[in-house]
Amino acid sequence: MTSDWNDKAKKLTRTLNHTFSDLKLLRAAITHRSTGETNNERLEFLGDSVLNCVIAAALYQRFPKANEGELTRLRAKMVREETVAEVARDLGIGDYLSLGIGEQKSGGYKRGSILSDAMEAIIGAIYLDSSFETCRDRILNWYEKYLAVLVPGASEKDAKTRLQEYCQAKGVALPIYQVSEIIGEAHNPTFKVECQVPLLAEPTLGLANSRRKAEQNAAEAALKCLKEE
Amino acid sequence: MTSDWNDKAKKLTRTLNHTFSDLKLLRAAITHRSTGETNNERLEFLGDSVLNCVIAAALYQRFPKANEGELTRLRAKMVREETVAEVARDLGIGDYLSLGIGEQKSGGYKRGSILSDAMEAIIGAIYLDSSFETCRDRILNWYEKYLAVLVPGASEKDAKTRLQEYCQAKGVALPIYQVSEIIGEAHNPTFKVECQVPLLAEPTLGLANSRRKAEQNAAEAALKCLKEE
Repeated sequence: MTSDWNDKAKKLTRTLNHTFSDLKLLRAAITHRSTGETNNERLEFLGDSVLNCVIAAALYQRFPKANEGELTRLRAKMVREETVAEVARDLGIGDYLSLGIGEQKSGGYKRGSILSDAMEAIIGAIYLDSSFETCRDRILNWYEKYLAVLVPGASEKDAKTRLQEYCQAKGVALPIYQVSEIIGEAHNPTFKVECQVPLLAEPTLGLANSRRKAEQNAAEAALKCLKEE
Repeated sequence: MTSDWNDKAKKLTRTLNHTFSDLKLLRAAITHRSTGETNNERLEFLGDSVLNCVIAAALYQRFPKANEGELTRLRAKMVREETVAEVARDLGIGDYLSLGIGEQKSGGYKRGSILSDAMEAIIGAIYLDSSFETCRDRILNWYEKYLAVLVPGASEKDAKTRLQEYCQAKGVALPIYQVSEIIGEAHNPTFKVECQVPLLAEPTLGLANSRRKAEQNAAEAALKCLKEE
């Protein structure tokens, strides 16, 4: 078991291009909770945040003319489970996973959610073992081929952008968004946002579990009303 | 106007404890889109990610025994609009905002969403102007009093944790979560997650706009079924 792990660790270290000072971090990162051992859930929480930040900064630099909505969309594309699992497959992470018997039998080493969780946990482990900058370099290396094909503006413009452009074209004041209510428990709130547009008598409403999405929904509703007028 | 800005910049620099190499970044960070000038929306996108990452790393280190669900809850508390606006008020950011005439008249400099957006944009500006580490030190300085009063476990345990503990107590296999469907457009998807528990004949379902929340909802549904049995 131990010499098995040593072999695994050596190979994985080469694949990741990172020599760990603390190999226990790497071991935890590839350990699924189904094993019952120290697992990767806390590292996944950390790595998810680091990945988000590194991708956000890379997109900000790469696309100096993209607006906030466009950057948000591109980031969502890069950090969603499907893409992160793809990066994990590129690196062959499935071969290194520690899974419980049940997960082994049901092919857990191929499952997107398990691969993506492990990939995020590995990112968290590298961050803790080195620095933000080192971790960023690794991530950008793995992501280069995914970032290279991104085209800003290729996806449809988001509702807030379209509504703003509509108001500008009509020469009226810009929309105003305001949270009118927060419903539900503090850790899982639903935001109710009002969108005021000079061209509509009544504000439109948007509901979602983040302020930004609620704003987008309210803008979508306003665009719909404007179309109908 | 320019000498006005120079005075503002000097004071704000002292408040933030950061001397900018590129003062244009700071100026953009405090400029609301209602002005029609180069505004803070792109910087806000970046700063939001940096803040998330810094807080995630701080919580990971501070609470070595907190699980992923608990860490996620604590982070949500620290990065929600209400808290970020509070940090902005501590620093008196409202006095420095550049707002359009309409926003000035309606008291925009006091509004939580405008303050929190500007605070995130300032974080983005400091990150670009220096390094992740420098930016982290500033953030943790401002956040110290908010982090100091956090108590992990004070909020209720999340549904996945409770369901896992239930299964462990009953000595059965752990729940399995699987995304069975993704509904809607790519930039605003709804995830449908199935949760399989050995104690229930049928998997329970959860819907939400992130996989994690959908898993929590499916776990909540499973707990409800188990209670009814």
